Amino acid sequence: MFSPLLNELIQSLRVLPGVGPRSAQRMALFLLERNRPGGARLGDVLLRAMTEVGHCQECRTLTEEPVCRLCANTARDRSQLCVVESPADVLAVEQSGGYRGLYFVLAGHLSPLDGIGPRELGIPDLMTRLGRGEVRELILATNATVEGEATAHYIRESCRDSGLQVSRIAHGVPMGGELDGVDSHTLARALSQRQQI
Amino acid sequence: MFSPLLNELIQSLRVLPGVGPRSAQRMALFLLERNRPGGARLGDVLLRAMTEVGHCQECRTLTEEPVCRLCANTARDRSQLCVVESPADVLAVEQSGGYRGLYFVLAGHLSPLDGIGPRELGIPDLMTRLGRGEVRELILATNATVEGEATAHYIRESCRDSGLQVSRIAHGVPMGGELDGVDSHTLARALSQRQQI
Ligand SMILES: [Zn+2]
Ligand SMILES: [Zn+2]
Repeated sequence: MFSPLLNELIQSLRVLPGVGPRSAQRMALFLLERNRPGGARLGDVLLRAMTEVGHCQECRTLTEEPVCRLCANTARDRSQLCVVESPADVLAVEQSGGYRGLYFVLAGHLSPLDGIGPRELGIPDLMTRLGRGEVRELILATNATVEGEATAHYIRESCRDSGLQVSRIAHGVPMGGELDGVDSHTLARALSQRQQI
Repeated sequence: MFSPLLNELIQSLRVLPGVGPRSAQRMALFLLERNRPGGARLGDVLLRAMTEVGHCQECRTLTEEPVCRLCANTARDRSQLCVVESPADVLAVEQSGGYRGLYFVLAGHLSPLDGIGPRELGIPDLMTRLGRGEVRELILATNATVEGEATAHYIRESCRDSGLQVSRIAHGVPMGGELDGVDSHTLARALSQRQQI
């Protein structure tokens, strides 16, 4: 019932995660009826970002600059390297406020069934980076999922003979979380990793 | 924590209705990490749609063509004109399957506090259209809201002396709806508009 270009717009909006046919229609009509300048600005930024944003030469996070601002910040502790699965995880760790080192951003986690192995994740680049000798402590902050654990395990094994101090972030009951709101897997882990106080 | 262009992308995505800071971040990272061709296509279609999509000369719906396909369809009954508030409403009436006439799409509803009067809605264009004499029945299908009712009332009064047959779509309990799921306003209206059977 809509014109070809309007249909094409509705269809294109569906590449966005969480956007089904009805929200795509609502978004398209909203932009055309209420905010064409905002829609055009989004179009322009999308085109620029999809071509110009690459990966930081140092940490592999998404950035249009050769080296990201975090890696370029000389106030950070270059002896600590925190390995995460995605740029969003860098933000999460930074917001926790407790870390002053650098990062290495993997392109996700090991997923052999999808053909995603160490090379696809960028683990060879990580090894090259560690070979430079600047890093003394490696903190594995991949997700607490089966794939995230397998990825951490793989990296741990890969630098077994490097003399690096390697740690894994702690898993357990979230701060402020009630025991009966936590899944049993997490609770089992929290119990087995209990610490003397 | 993100690069300037990535921050700009996240910010620009927030023009979309229903997209807050967290979904905008999720969308931006998803496109950059998983679907750059889809993101670039969306950017291109957005830029084209925001400049090329205009309004049908006949019915004022959104289209990049001078006259929309519905108005151009000679199989439609040109003596009936259904007035709706938005292009999405044309789709809704078409999907109901019970209408074979043409449409006139207002730019919303009367909203004096927002400075939206008859002129902003396109009511003068509607009157010009009715003056051509082709239309014999006018069906007012604006929303069943206070503003939609006021808009229907205004149009009804504006063509009081035209000799046109004017009707308003029926309001009442939705088909398949249980009485106790319907708001009391709707139920009161359904009662007062009861029909002999
Ligand atoms: Zn970096
Ligand atoms: Zn039309």
